[in-house]
Amino acid sequence: MKLRFAGTGDSAQVPCFGCDCPACQRARLLTCHRRGPCAGEIELDGELILIDAGRMDLAERCERQRPAAILLTHYHADHVQGLLHLRWGRGEAIPVYGPKDAQGCADLHKNPGILDFRPGLKPFRPLTLGGLTLTPLPLNHSKPTLGYAIEDGAQRIAWLCDTVGLPGATERFLSEWQPHGVVIDATHPDSSDTPRNHNNLAMALEIIERLDPARTWLTHISHELDASMMTGSSPLPVGVELAADGLEILV
Amino acid sequence: MKLRFAGTGDSAQVPCFGCDCPACQRARLLTCHRRGPCAGEIELDGELILIDAGRMDLAERCERQRPAAILLTHYHADHVQGLLHLRWGRGEAIPVYGPKDAQGCADLHKNPGILDFRPGLKPFRPLTLGGLTLTPLPLNHSKPTLGYAIEDGAQRIAWLCDTVGLPGATERFLSEWQPHGVVIDATHPDSSDTPRNHNNLAMALEIIERLDPARTWLTHISHELDASMMTGSSPLPVGVELAADGLEILV
Ligand SMILES: [Mn+2]
Ligand SMILES: [Mn+2]
Ligand SMILES: [Mn+2]
Ligand SMILES: [Mn+2]
Ligand SMILES: [Zn+2]
Ligand SMILES: [Zn+2]
Repeated sequence: MKLRFAGTGDSAQVPCFGCDCPACQRARLLTCHRRGPCAGEIELDGELILIDAGRMDLAERCERQRPAAILLTHYHADHVQGLLHLRWGRGEAIPVYGPKDAQGCADLHKNPGILDFRPGLKPFRPLTLGGLTLTPLPLNHSKPTLGYAIEDGAQRIAWLCDTVGLPGATERFLSEWQPHGVVIDATHPDSSDTPRNHNNLAMALEIIERLDPARTWLTHISHELDASMMTGSSPLPVGVELAADGLEILV
Repeated sequence: MKLRFAGTGDSAQVPCFGCDCPACQRARLLTCHRRGPCAGEIELDGELILIDAGRMDLAERCERQRPAAILLTHYHADHVQGLLHLRWGRGEAIPVYGPKDAQGCADLHKNPGILDFRPGLKPFRPLTLGGLTLTPLPLNHSKPTLGYAIEDGAQRIAWLCDTVGLPGATERFLSEWQPHGVVIDATHPDSSDTPRNHNNLAMALEIIERLDPARTWLTHISHELDASMMTGSSPLPVGVELAADGLEILV
């Protein structure tokens, strides 16, 4: 499968409106340093599956290639705001999978348009989409949130965002499943405050040390983490990198 | 004052995702025919006031010039979705005025970030912003919705969107107030169905005939109305035109 990082930023994105920190200044000058809302794209056998839908150009992306399905981690705006517009399109319904969340976001569930919201996924109950097997994994966040263990028969990738730490059952699943690659929430730089809804860098790296995948991509990155990394004071372990918008990986 | 049409489309925008009608095909080829979510910008004495906030590039627009205030007509996603991201910015709070609507959209009221949501405006109770006097006018829509009678001391413009028809009190106010220019919802082409939430072309023109302003701009235009106008079978009365994204007017 091919995995593309469509967006790697937090809800404020990078640059963050009105911010003059070094990371935001850099992102205004060099578009390669911008970060849109955290989202992924998986391509397998010519089919496109989107992970999350918070990007602002979602409809344009879908016009270039209509997705076979959209997989949601949760209903925070930065993960679904593109659907507010996409839903009013034309043509065949697009199936949307995600956690059980009666509230959803705004009026999406009440007025789904061309979106076919499927019943909420059950934790650890695998879903098959084309050649992919996707196992929903509960995460720790302020809204019902699922990560995904993604398998194409050969490679195993875990998508773990948004989360702070990991629930015990999810960590046990992953330890046994042994993903080759992990994509994980690393929103905040390290600080004395314990984050409530997202990992900071140290928390993400502790999880990675325990799971020990061959490769790790940090995502949902805030301008604060970017600014902190720009000082060069937090070198990343071998096999761990900051994801970037547009980065493509063949796994 | 200067009035700029930042967006003139309906919630599906033009082109509408997945649609191959002549209007959508034209808009894909020629960007001047695209229509983003309905929104306006007023400039007076160097200050910027935004009308509605549904455009997807709202944060970028606000970085070029920080608005003195944002004026909302209502909390449907196509009028506020840009705030879902803008709110996480930095710097001084941005005052946001709009109708009383406890629900708002998604978690905007619960997590306002840098947005300073002011108490809901009272119908016909004028608000002063810099050199502008803005009188909120109730409209007929599926959520609490206000139009605005906008006056800079010399000229009078009415912004009437989203609406189907006009409440009696609003029409009486406008008949007396005698706007020079009117911006009005004309979402749908004429058809035998009576629209429930938006004017069709005939309904918009009937209102304009009664109010008799010197100039009228039709907005919140669907791809269906664009496609219908492309056939040339509905010439508009003198003084009435379709608004276009980016159109600027000195009034
Ligand atoms: Mn998020
Ligand atoms: Mn979240
Ligand atoms: Mn609307
Ligand atoms: Mn509306
Ligand atoms: Zn910054
Ligand atoms: Zn169309």
